[in-house]
Amino acid sequence: MNWHNLHIITGLDKNFLAKIITAKKILLVLDENVAKIYLVQLEKLFDKYTLNIVFLASGENNKTWQQVTKIIDSLLENQHDRFSTLVSFGGGITGDLAGFAASIFMRGINFVQIPTTLLAQIDAAIGGKNGCNYLGVKNLIGTFYQPQSIIIDIALLETLPQREYISGLVEVVKYGMACDVSFFVWLEKNMISLINRDVGALKVAVRWCCKIKMDLVQKDEKDHGVRRSLNFGHTFAHAIEAATDYNYYLHGEAVAIGMLLATRLAVKLDFIGEAEFTRLKTMLRGLMLPLNWANEYCNPSLIYNFMLADKKKCAQQLHIILPCAVGEVRVLQGLSLKCLEELIVDYAG
Amino acid sequence: MNWHNLHIITGLDKNFLAKIITAKKILLVLDENVAKIYLVQLEKLFDKYTLNIVFLASGENNKTWQQVTKIIDSLLENQHDRFSTLVSFGGGITGDLAGFAASIFMRGINFVQIPTTLLAQIDAAIGGKNGCNYLGVKNLIGTFYQPQSIIIDIALLETLPQREYISGLVEVVKYGMACDVSFFVWLEKNMISLINRDVGALKVAVRWCCKIKMDLVQKDEKDHGVRRSLNFGHTFAHAIEAATDYNYYLHGEAVAIGMLLATRLAVKLDFIGEAEFTRLKTMLRGLMLPLNWANEYCNPSLIYNFMLADKKKCAQQLHIILPCAVGEVRVLQGLSLKCLEELIVDYAG
Repeated sequence: MNWHNLHIITGLDKNFLAKIITAKKILLVLDENVAKIYLVQLEKLFDKYTLNIVFLASGENNKTWQQVTKIIDSLLENQHDRFSTLVSFGGGITGDLAGFAASIFMRGINFVQIPTTLLAQIDAAIGGKNGCNYLGVKNLIGTFYQPQSIIIDIALLETLPQREYISGLVEVVKYGMACDVSFFVWLEKNMISLINRDVGALKVAVRWCCKIKMDLVQKDEKDHGVRRSLNFGHTFAHAIEAATDYNYYLHGEAVAIGMLLATRLAVKLDFIGEAEFTRLKTMLRGLMLPLNWANEYCNPSLIYNFMLADKKKCAQQLHIILPCAVGEVRVLQGLSLKCLEELIVDYAG
Repeated sequence: MNWHNLHIITGLDKNFLAKIITAKKILLVLDENVAKIYLVQLEKLFDKYTLNIVFLASGENNKTWQQVTKIIDSLLENQHDRFSTLVSFGGGITGDLAGFAASIFMRGINFVQIPTTLLAQIDAAIGGKNGCNYLGVKNLIGTFYQPQSIIIDIALLETLPQREYISGLVEVVKYGMACDVSFFVWLEKNMISLINRDVGALKVAVRWCCKIKMDLVQKDEKDHGVRRSLNFGHTFAHAIEAATDYNYYLHGEAVAIGMLLATRLAVKLDFIGEAEFTRLKTMLRGLMLPLNWANEYCNPSLIYNFMLADKKKCAQQLHIILPCAVGEVRVLQGLSLKCLEELIVDYAG
């Protein structure tokens, strides 16, 4: 995967598609909610190809092996072979399920991602990670598999529900806070435009995020080193999502809380100053997020157990990414339950 | 994967193992038949590690996704993480199932192969292909995933049942006939020693086969070009195995028939002379194989349908590897049912 396989455009048309996908036969994997808006348009867009479509149920609870097999079954039923291309059109979950299926069907067929959410466009679609939940564990099985192309169509963001769009902006903030101070400064100036879905501002932000992620992935495809900085806020976030059964917070909303918790912890440990915490909090407050986390959904020991169960643990040692400046992070090894409980008392969304 | 990850030895001991596997925790995947002979020895061999063992049912009909999940379940139950190493000890099927599980658990953990059959030592264990059958289709799902190490212990071949050992020698013959005339000439001189499991001759032959395969894999990991020459005899063989529900011929026995069919076809098409066909047939006859194929198990139209269903088909075109000299092959595109029927009449095992 490199920069020339990534296409950031505004409005996908047949001519462009014909240049990207040379296969004759396509299996399109489509989120059922996204299908409600785009199905007719997509059937026209792909009418030069032999097209089969699989519809996937939405939501984290449907990120299952059963949905992966639905894709495999359809590939087999419709007699696809290793010369077919699998195209995913949807958010991060759709892309992860489709990517996993593409990577294992006949040991790997061509895969093209068309992410439709902001979160998927700047994060999930880039880097080749895919997978599904299994036996109740998030992303327990999956592969690293680079798509042939990623088509990021900014125009698709127009139809995104507001809550989901804002949730995606949280990950945009993460790139600034964890990786690039000049991007964070740019965000401080342009957040209003982004909230208003200004296409110009969005193109700059999406391109910037993709660039940061691709650079990290190129340095560390298998996620053992620098790529981990992108986990800023995520060890907490995954536990918060798991503890609320994935149906209370959107991913970005949980990441916002996770970033504030991590930064609060960094302040306590003197890695970073109060001023930097305030800059991050101000930006996140501007997104009107539900940051009032220390409520009935907050159960420290439950959260702590989910953190320990997180697969990024290294021999029972938790690794937590903490900021040490705006745009810079370091790794903290280990966190006690007592320390987490104090942190939660200290937390003020 | 390269030459220094491949260890051809006689007699595996703890010191050697300690050099190869630095992980503390190991999941050993063991074929239940192999376990009957080696379990006690293996428990001693691995006693410096935290060891869990999964036993897999033997045979092609058990090359299923259910067996892959048995491995995944055990990894999860025993709290393995991405720092564990998965070790397979068994034949090609065990290696394929274990390799697939290793490649998808947490998006890939370290994998060490210890192939116990001749066939697995010279073929299945090398090249990174893994997978399982699915919805009745052979190897429908799987990945390309290179093991961290392959330990080929010639001493393990001592306990191999005679029929299985001879079946492995067929693939040895394939390397000579398809890829390397000087190896074929060496085989003509040394076949008696190989049949008698002479360790010295076996070391030469195994090393030679591994070298040929590794060179081809390095040139063509994803099997789109030169690596296909190793499919010599296999398009027929897979169909013959499928048509007899994988319980009449061993793989190598079917490959022997497949190579003779392919070479007979090559003679008909004037790619190769009658003399070369005779050299191959003489060598295979020396192995005392059941070559009397044109019997009640031979149903041309059934075989033909399985050949068409073979996943190496390219847009309904069959690709068949035919010899054009001893040690050299070319690809034939397309074969009619009529031509296959004539070939079968012409075939004399």
